[in-house]
Amino acid sequence: MALIVQKFGGSSVADVSKIQNIAQKISKFYSDNNKIVVVVSAMGDSTDILLEMANEINSHPSSREMDMLLSTGEQVSIALLAMALDAINIPVISFTGSQVGIITDNIHCKARINKIVTDKITCALDENKVVIVAGFQGRTIENEITTLGRGGSDTTAVALATSLNADLCEIYTDVDGVYTTDPRIVKEAVKLNEITYDEMLELASLGAGVLHPRSVELAKLYNVPLSVRSSFSNEEGTKVVNTTLLEKEIVVTGVTRDLNVAKIGLFDVPDIPGIASKIFNFLANEHINVDMIVQSAMRNDLNDIAFTIPKDDLNKALEIINRIKDDIKISEVVYADDVAKVSIVGAGMITSPGVAAKMFKILADNNVNLKMISTSEIKVSCIVDADQADKSVQLLHESFNLANLK
Amino acid sequence: MALIVQKFGGSSVADVSKIQNIAQKISKFYSDNNKIVVVVSAMGDSTDILLEMANEINSHPSSREMDMLLSTGEQVSIALLAMALDAINIPVISFTGSQVGIITDNIHCKARINKIVTDKITCALDENKVVIVAGFQGRTIENEITTLGRGGSDTTAVALATSLNADLCEIYTDVDGVYTTDPRIVKEAVKLNEITYDEMLELASLGAGVLHPRSVELAKLYNVPLSVRSSFSNEEGTKVVNTTLLEKEIVVTGVTRDLNVAKIGLFDVPDIPGIASKIFNFLANEHINVDMIVQSAMRNDLNDIAFTIPKDDLNKALEIINRIKDDIKISEVVYADDVAKVSIVGAGMITSPGVAAKMFKILADNNVNLKMISTSEIKVSCIVDADQADKSVQLLHESFNLANLK
Repeated sequence: MALIVQKFGGSSVADVSKIQNIAQKISKFYSDNNKIVVVVSAMGDSTDILLEMANEINSHPSSREMDMLLSTGEQVSIALLAMALDAINIPVISFTGSQVGIITDNIHCKARINKIVTDKITCALDENKVVIVAGFQGRTIENEITTLGRGGSDTTAVALATSLNADLCEIYTDVDGVYTTDPRIVKEAVKLNEITYDEMLELASLGAGVLHPRSVELAKLYNVPLSVRSSFSNEEGTKVVNTTLLEKEIVVTGVTRDLNVAKIGLFDVPDIPGIASKIFNFLANEHINVDMIVQSAMRNDLNDIAFTIPKDDLNKALEIINRIKDDIKISEVVYADDVAKVSIVGAGMITSPGVAAKMFKILADNNVNLKMISTSEIKVSCIVDADQADKSVQLLHESFNLANLK
Repeated sequence: MALIVQKFGGSSVADVSKIQNIAQKISKFYSDNNKIVVVVSAMGDSTDILLEMANEINSHPSSREMDMLLSTGEQVSIALLAMALDAINIPVISFTGSQVGIITDNIHCKARINKIVTDKITCALDENKVVIVAGFQGRTIENEITTLGRGGSDTTAVALATSLNADLCEIYTDVDGVYTTDPRIVKEAVKLNEITYDEMLELASLGAGVLHPRSVELAKLYNVPLSVRSSFSNEEGTKVVNTTLLEKEIVVTGVTRDLNVAKIGLFDVPDIPGIASKIFNFLANEHINVDMIVQSAMRNDLNDIAFTIPKDDLNKALEIINRIKDDIKISEVVYADDVAKVSIVGAGMITSPGVAAKMFKILADNNVNLKMISTSEIKVSCIVDADQADKSVQLLHESFNLANLK
């Protein structure tokens, strides 16, 4: 008997028949004498429909009311999934994030989980019920409804797995595991049987889209056994593990592409200590995640600073910068949202020099212009024109021989 | 400066432009220095869409999960209305029923309000905010989400008005007041400027559909000044008052028709004390509201009992009766759902004998067959064939000269 947390994303609960399909899947695990906690996202495109109405009504909706609105999506899913399990005689109970005691900070739309009160869940598990928890949402100690931002349901699942000391956390999605790259871009992409937390973290951050980076970070921190599987098949997925034997041999494990990127350039920023910190603090205060930052060589005591942010945050970021622009004497602000981030990831890079150089050469030989470069111990990322992103991924996947990985 | 509770029904918030229209209406009251608490229902047919999915998944969904599902409807409305008010610079905050502290009993889908914790509302009003509360919903002391059943949002509004000691409770709807009968059936129907709680209570119970009977009951009990108005015009509506001058002159104030009626007949029920109470207790335990009850003259120590219930509850009621049928020796159970209840209502009836007789004669003269009759001090109701209901209403409206009322 094991305690398993299973998370199903929006595409897995997109309609009535998919919800029934998932209920069947859960019932098999339940019948095998496991204790099951299920985390679900909002149905298919229901969140988009709500967002559309909100934006029609208010171009700058309050983030508190946005949380009030969006949290209804998962509440619909948990109720319907509970009804589907009940229909096949599986004892079940559903809880909203507020109800079950997922306590967050008070940053609406991007809240972080502070703690989870597990009493209600353990009590229901003791009664042999499947427990369904709404993903993506929680509440502050003042009982204000919050949401966790992008990929929040993954985070809910991992946080629950940690708090409940679960034996396994399974993330069900519409693909059957983690691939060397997006199979829609490179048809030779292969599924990985195992991947390290660190590699997954880089892949997740880079827009592989299978798992949210926050959830991987949390899983790594608390050593939660994580597995990525398909909602629509019974195949084994990809295990995310602490260390892997693969590390010895393989330098590059995956190639990713992220189109949700915008680039902002600030020209002629005075070279005064604290200026960069000031700019990025203003952005951080508005909860804009700055990703890559590049500062060019100084000319005449002036710096050029370029950085990337999620495309959604571009307008907000430009507003902030225009507000402080004169104050900190930036001569010009430029931006682009027709760019993409292409990255290679692999734990083996640490011990294999020249990987970045090989990447740059492959891209240069094929006339891909690199607009920004950023590296970590286990990844190299480049900003390229959006329309060259797929081509770059295909070239790198082939050149690093990823089709022959396992 | 007055404290006004305003309730807007589903048709008043059916789409984005209607929500914006209501925001404008609310802003006028706010700008006139009133303190405003707004109660809203779910958008248009959103509840029906949720119900449809639920029924597709489970033919007997658990009432707890049904509440979990349906309560999302109002939560969407309150968030969108808050965004609409914010867009025109009216300070505003929304609350779910759970959040604001509308504490109910634990009868899911038909919960009754036990008390309302008003701290959050009064605090927000003190900050000069418009407060939006989700209608139709509350929570138990164990923090389980409940809904109040049909017309629950009206009840929420009146209960809030009482708890907050409001100066006025306005129910906005898609008609501009209470009419002598449904203008879609009788085009000569006229709007009443005033009506007593008792008359409104009878009209509401009889399916006039403008106000839910529970809300009128509550308003009467706590003497809440109530007003029925149109969401789509600025006309004065109908005031619901304690006593009215009309009472002296006018015998019949309204004619109603209710198609949501099913009739069950039990033949040859043994004439043993407590049998009727046993039957109706079984129904009450399953929260089926029995309306009219008629027991015929006894033959050979056997009674025939007939009663009416809401059409929705017919299957459930038949199930219960078939379960207990043999035990209490009922020889035959018959039922009909192609019936309607036609009623006349008027506070003046108490002092005007012969009103019921006049009603029966009008219907008999026009070949309308009366299947059941039930009377109270201020109303007479008859069960007729559903296809004769509209004709009956037209005849009664004309014969009692209601087109000339004010």
